[in-house]
Amino acid sequence: MRTAATEKATGGTREDRRTHPAPREPAYVHGYSDHEARRLTDQADTLAALLHAGTAYPAGSRVLEAGCGVGAQTVHLAASSPGAHITAVDISASSLDQARARLAARPHTATVSWRQADLTDLPYADASFDHLFVCFVLEHLPDPAQALAGLRRVLRPGGTVTVIEGDHGSVFFHPDSDHARTVIGHQVRLQAAAGGNALLGRQVQPLLAAAGYEDVVVRPRTVYADTTRPGLVDSFTRNTFIAMVAAVRDDALAAGLTTEADWERGIRDLRRTAEAGGTFHYTFVKATAVNPGG
Amino acid sequence: MRTAATEKATGGTREDRRTHPAPREPAYVHGYSDHEARRLTDQADTLAALLHAGTAYPAGSRVLEAGCGVGAQTVHLAASSPGAHITAVDISASSLDQARARLAARPHTATVSWRQADLTDLPYADASFDHLFVCFVLEHLPDPAQALAGLRRVLRPGGTVTVIEGDHGSVFFHPDSDHARTVIGHQVRLQAAAGGNALLGRQVQPLLAAAGYEDVVVRPRTVYADTTRPGLVDSFTRNTFIAMVAAVRDDALAAGLTTEADWERGIRDLRRTAEAGGTFHYTFVKATAVNPGG
Repeated sequence: MRTAATEKATGGTREDRRTHPAPREPAYVHGYSDHEARRLTDQADTLAALLHAGTAYPAGSRVLEAGCGVGAQTVHLAASSPGAHITAVDISASSLDQARARLAARPHTATVSWRQADLTDLPYADASFDHLFVCFVLEHLPDPAQALAGLRRVLRPGGTVTVIEGDHGSVFFHPDSDHARTVIGHQVRLQAAAGGNALLGRQVQPLLAAAGYEDVVVRPRTVYADTTRPGLVDSFTRNTFIAMVAAVRDDALAAGLTTEADWERGIRDLRRTAEAGGTFHYTFVKATAVNPGG
Repeated sequence: MRTAATEKATGGTREDRRTHPAPREPAYVHGYSDHEARRLTDQADTLAALLHAGTAYPAGSRVLEAGCGVGAQTVHLAASSPGAHITAVDISASSLDQARARLAARPHTATVSWRQADLTDLPYADASFDHLFVCFVLEHLPDPAQALAGLRRVLRPGGTVTVIEGDHGSVFFHPDSDHARTVIGHQVRLQAAAGGNALLGRQVQPLLAAAGYEDVVVRPRTVYADTTRPGLVDSFTRNTFIAMVAAVRDDALAAGLTTEADWERGIRDLRRTAEAGGTFHYTFVKATAVNPGG
């Protein structure tokens, strides 16, 4: 099956996916000192550290990153597993080009191979990999359980899978606002209409179990930002989460989910959570599991 | 001001407070083996470990636990800070009796003094303590900012405060259910009607800042339970969170918030999150801050 939804889901337009809160570069340059700029960068890196903590593959191990997109996670994989042989797969040639350039800009010693392929129909023999890494991908798939089962085919018995997903139902913030929660709900609904699931994080354990993996261990990774962490407020609350929600404005209006006035009120309230006195929580789910039979 | 709400808030009926998900003993005995019983106990202790991690006071330091209730947290404070001088205050003599008995049942070397007092009008001179510990108390206070400011009076300059609170808006689960979320909303509304705030966790940082504390550091502590952690499912999802919501049934019906049928459906759906394939997330907020001038 190759539809617009799976095209997107398998990485075709990863750069355009504003429907998930993956870490990304700040969207604008701050008028601060070098010291402040470094502090902001450090705090943006905090999010990647939070998500990648505990993920390091042994030298020589064969790692498949399924759905690498533009390489936002690949650079962290390469940094954390300098001796691993990483194969990064995406369906989009242009995304792979960007991923290559992104990795080339960072010093690393890992071996990274790039391959254009559909992760629901991988061109690899059974048991070709020791480890799978799947980050912010399942949320875009119409049948994530089937995808996980298909991925398991290329994983050797005893090999591991690591899954990282967000869940927009995990969001809570101060000041609280029905209007803000409503605009987030519109994003969730639009992603569902596109065949995805912005509430997937809560389902990772049952999905892995249903796909035949064993020893599933799920750990929540909660991001918290308040005025004492201005870099994280900028990089996560404003430039990742709110930007992601704000990006569906036209779709939400076109779908008749909201009016311009209601939309603006919701976004305005959401932005207040990034101002002085505001707080913002988001929980990612990180899971590891094992392919039986090792 | 001494009202039913503050009476409750300051610890008078701590044992009856089913409106907060504090760790508590399992409500029933499992028909499992000793090994399984130990495993369940271990997992129940996991929650206390999650909340108390990082909290240990130096030998000789003067620690005030404000609103100790029946001592559910006091036993962990005493275990983690064996050389500290802990003063545990509660407004209820009967709660203090229970707290004393609870602590006596556990071996410990900490010095614990008990005192019946209203935490909004403490009988201590300024700067009497080096550290304050306030756990699951602010959520019951009509004016938590004022209470924190009042507590700061008895804290020496340079001393620290530790605050732990839940936030029912942090809950998300699988299978998702509007009915389940609605019954949780009833509990939140009833607690608000009683002068409390079940969504207080998100406000801890601005509250501490408003009360004049500095160097506020907030860390989310997220509890996650699924079928791979049966002890935590029992001790937290079923016997803490769901039991707490279920306890307001009669009040919710009396207040006309729901019907028996809707209530039962919501609770039934909530219980499904504790069955095979279900998942449950709850985020506590733990903060530390410093009294300026040290």
